[in-house]
Amino acid sequence: MVHGRPPLSALTRTLADVAMGREPADLVITGGRLVNVHTREVLDGAQVAVTSGRVAIFGDAAHTRGPRTRVLDADGAYLVPGLIDTHLHVESAMVTVARFAEAVLAHGTTTVLIDNHEIANVLGLDGIRWMLEEGSALQLKVLLAVPSCVPALPGFEDAGAVITPDDVREALRWEGVAALGEMMNMPGVFQSDADTHEMIGAVLDARLPVTGHWSLHGWRDHRLHAYAAAGVDSDHETVVREDGLAKLRAGMWLSLREGSAWHDVAALAPLLTDDGIDPRHTLLVTDDMHPETLVTVGHLNHAVRTAIAAGIDPLLAIQMATVNAAEYLGRRQDIGSIAPGRCADVLFVEDLRELRPHLVLADGEPVRGEQPSYEYPARARETVRVARALTREDLRVAAAGSRARVRAIGMVPGELATEHRVVEAPVVDGEVRADPALDLAKVASIERHGGPGTIGVGFVQGLGLRRGAVASTVAHDNHNLLVAGMDDDDMRFAVDRLREIGGGMVAVAGGEVLGEVRLPIAGLMSDRPVAAVAEEVRALGGAYRELGCELEYPFMMVSFLSLGVIPALRITNRGLVDGREFRIVEPIA
Amino acid sequence: MVHGRPPLSALTRTLADVAMGREPADLVITGGRLVNVHTREVLDGAQVAVTSGRVAIFGDAAHTRGPRTRVLDADGAYLVPGLIDTHLHVESAMVTVARFAEAVLAHGTTTVLIDNHEIANVLGLDGIRWMLEEGSALQLKVLLAVPSCVPALPGFEDAGAVITPDDVREALRWEGVAALGEMMNMPGVFQSDADTHEMIGAVLDARLPVTGHWSLHGWRDHRLHAYAAAGVDSDHETVVREDGLAKLRAGMWLSLREGSAWHDVAALAPLLTDDGIDPRHTLLVTDDMHPETLVTVGHLNHAVRTAIAAGIDPLLAIQMATVNAAEYLGRRQDIGSIAPGRCADVLFVEDLRELRPHLVLADGEPVRGEQPSYEYPARARETVRVARALTREDLRVAAAGSRARVRAIGMVPGELATEHRVVEAPVVDGEVRADPALDLAKVASIERHGGPGTIGVGFVQGLGLRRGAVASTVAHDNHNLLVAGMDDDDMRFAVDRLREIGGGMVAVAGGEVLGEVRLPIAGLMSDRPVAAVAEEVRALGGAYRELGCELEYPFMMVSFLSLGVIPALRITNRGLVDGREFRIVEPIA
Repeated sequence: MVHGRPPLSALTRTLADVAMGREPADLVITGGRLVNVHTREVLDGAQVAVTSGRVAIFGDAAHTRGPRTRVLDADGAYLVPGLIDTHLHVESAMVTVARFAEAVLAHGTTTVLIDNHEIANVLGLDGIRWMLEEGSALQLKVLLAVPSCVPALPGFEDAGAVITPDDVREALRWEGVAALGEMMNMPGVFQSDADTHEMIGAVLDARLPVTGHWSLHGWRDHRLHAYAAAGVDSDHETVVREDGLAKLRAGMWLSLREGSAWHDVAALAPLLTDDGIDPRHTLLVTDDMHPETLVTVGHLNHAVRTAIAAGIDPLLAIQMATVNAAEYLGRRQDIGSIAPGRCADVLFVEDLRELRPHLVLADGEPVRGEQPSYEYPARARETVRVARALTREDLRVAAAGSRARVRAIGMVPGELATEHRVVEAPVVDGEVRADPALDLAKVASIERHGGPGTIGVGFVQGLGLRRGAVASTVAHDNHNLLVAGMDDDDMRFAVDRLREIGGGMVAVAGGEVLGEVRLPIAGLMSDRPVAAVAEEVRALGGAYRELGCELEYPFMMVSFLSLGVIPALRITNRGLVDGREFRIVEPIA
Repeated sequence: MVHGRPPLSALTRTLADVAMGREPADLVITGGRLVNVHTREVLDGAQVAVTSGRVAIFGDAAHTRGPRTRVLDADGAYLVPGLIDTHLHVESAMVTVARFAEAVLAHGTTTVLIDNHEIANVLGLDGIRWMLEEGSALQLKVLLAVPSCVPALPGFEDAGAVITPDDVREALRWEGVAALGEMMNMPGVFQSDADTHEMIGAVLDARLPVTGHWSLHGWRDHRLHAYAAAGVDSDHETVVREDGLAKLRAGMWLSLREGSAWHDVAALAPLLTDDGIDPRHTLLVTDDMHPETLVTVGHLNHAVRTAIAAGIDPLLAIQMATVNAAEYLGRRQDIGSIAPGRCADVLFVEDLRELRPHLVLADGEPVRGEQPSYEYPARARETVRVARALTREDLRVAAAGSRARVRAIGMVPGELATEHRVVEAPVVDGEVRADPALDLAKVASIERHGGPGTIGVGFVQGLGLRRGAVASTVAHDNHNLLVAGMDDDDMRFAVDRLREIGGGMVAVAGGEVLGEVRLPIAGLMSDRPVAAVAEEVRALGGAYRELGCELEYPFMMVSFLSLGVIPALRITNRGLVDGREFRIVEPIA
């Protein structure tokens, strides 16, 4: 039932034997304050007997102790069920699943539903499966939401793969597949696109959840209901309380998101603190957490902490990240509570509001700092398939006359959405170049998946770059090679550097690398510890600032320049994409 | 997904088309006060658009109206989701599933999880399947909980069939099978009986609920936890608040029962009204409703009404019988709420506390008073297979001397549990006879399933009979032919009468039938309307009283005389069963 572990059905007799005292428990926890998420109570002085990784009984467990039973004195600590994150992308942490697990287990996250659509855009179904296989060997319970929208914007970009309804059906046969990944193709759903509905239908027939992505803020009418009626049963993109209420009323589960760059919990908390809404269908998710957040702040426990700080009762906030999540996933007999039959995933914490575990058990075992590494096939490490070095001509934006009106992706501080700007820029030698005076950088997306090898070129305003170039093979969601810069030669150098190191993120100037994060697996992930990657990311941020870019999470802002599904203007390997009218536009207006 | 209906996957495009106004709705309800069980709110002035039996949208639905759209003005009535009963035995209503459906649909019950272990004891897997097939053609959504304990007490009775783990696996392949039936073999679970756990494991592997029956009142320790750890996830036998709390804490769902003879809701309501327990895992069920109750009182709406009368908030009480039940069953995308994608099962009610619907929609259609009848095979009508008429010798209890100490099943007014009494009785002509002075009736259980044909004979004290005899082929759970009386000849006549009419219940005296209920299908059910059966049952009650029996529900008290799993003394075709020590005892002590 939970990938890589025996199902409950294989253990019921063992559990009964231990519960009744016929066989000794593997472990007995004593002196804990058990957070019971079924009743929303704290039960003091609880003992918990564990066998074969699951809870046999709680309460008085003295009769389950044998000579070899390990006894763990909680010494008055709260015992909190392992936290469950029902929507996240491991790739955002820039590390493999094993390294991610090491980081989040320590924070008390014991189950994750991963939607690995980043690797899917690079390596297709194989990449999806490799990460699932990697997850099956870990103490972290890794469930898979099969990515539903690969590529994100068909017809406007060339990703490394296409996920079809047949692919989804294939994946539904794999152990550990537990949902459909976020359905970003909202129009496809409400406009009754055949493939989109076929994919959803396959997952509904498997009695699994269809996770949503409804980023059309303020749209809470019949279009939202069409989306829900089609079986999409959750959403994590909500930023406005009224939208959240509409989704809950429509029978959807509302995921309050607190990630590195997402801070939606506080805005949505009043649904629970003021509106008196039944909280059972609310969840907490992280969506995207960067390496540094995992090192310095936490993971899902931070989302719970944020919810509590926003006024939500601590027991309720813990329910949102435990039993609610288990019920959303339809896995209540396996996870989500410290109760008979459930996996013994237990956080020991002193302060329920802070939720910083000093000990975490997964399947009844203390979590280990090192999780087993997975040997990704060579193909996963050879994904920067740009056939040749760029020429100056590749990046040239030709224009006539002395001045031209150029389209620019307009950065908006603190937002992912961009503006579609038209800027008057000088023409020199028959081309428009990057211009510090206008805060205008050149940007290009280079197909890197061994496909057509095409290059889209345009401009971006507001990065703040004064010189040099930055490049990234993390470029949502097509993950082509994205480069932006003030100098064509530096841009070409940055591209070469990423070809050389097999993917990652760099900042360069004057032919020198100022900062770099090596992400050799799919050009998205490293297999080094998250702390090491966080340090590189921090250094890269310094390099960005050195080049003049003062944005928060600059590497993220750059990596989203290619995500055509978010308005208003983006760049893909096919050119500038108008994300409102869904058409390719020329760089010269 | 719901037996006999297209799954949601087949309708998602249609639903989106109607939601968006591209296709007209079949039905639009206007002017309703929508009870939203997701948020626990009432939404005034709601419109609801329905297509293909499911809700497309609610809110403003004007754009979904076409020239052929039926418009139904709710005129300010509350719109309540169809009620879902997660534990009941149709056979208790003494009618077939179609006739049962006619009765309960009118009261607003639109989905039932039937546990048909009564017919299973007579006709085995075939009988189970026939009732499921019957259910598939009805407006009532009939889901099946495969009976788990047939016979109820192996080794102490001969029923008409045995349900094995292989049978359960076979049934799990049928559409409409949704759970394992009530696991009455509590010791089998906590003592790790192999077959019992195999059966449970098969259902857990199918990701379906394992419904419980924990009648060990006051046992809320490790034995209860062993039962829960083995995957049993609900219970409807709870009569004490503290027991209910223990079950909820153990992660089980607590079914508050209000049947014809079960009145547990009031005693358990304080869990919700006083203890502040999270109510999401509480359910309302009827278990057993007699014909007369269905005619005069109601069905699950009566349980909701009772909960409200006990102080539970009306919206919460409605949740217990709708969304909670849907989530228990893992069918939230199909039933349990008036929300996009769900089946349009809607009650129109004026008074939320009374919950007496003046209109009920099932799958968007008004419920019809007549549901399609099912043609049961001849074998289902030939189940009183007693090979020969009884002789006086068959019923004789021989004893020596002038007085004997005889064991008697002691009736306790208002309780199903009996006492194990030893009564001193006169011996006449070498035998002990029924004796009005001692309120001592003779009782016998005659194997009727074409098996060994054995007869168990004993005594029962406290029926109040002064003369005549009563007999029944409804005799829990083995459903052999049970007869009790003050006169051996009347007892033989009563048995003959049931052989003649193919099963049912009779009261006779002096060779005359005073009252009778004909139940030709399996000796348990009639295919006449429930009102007609109720009238016969009422008349039978009059006949019982005429014979001196003043018990409430006398036919039920008699039918339970053979249920060996309930203490203390019972009669089966193998003899008197001591239900505490689980052994056969002689009628003469």
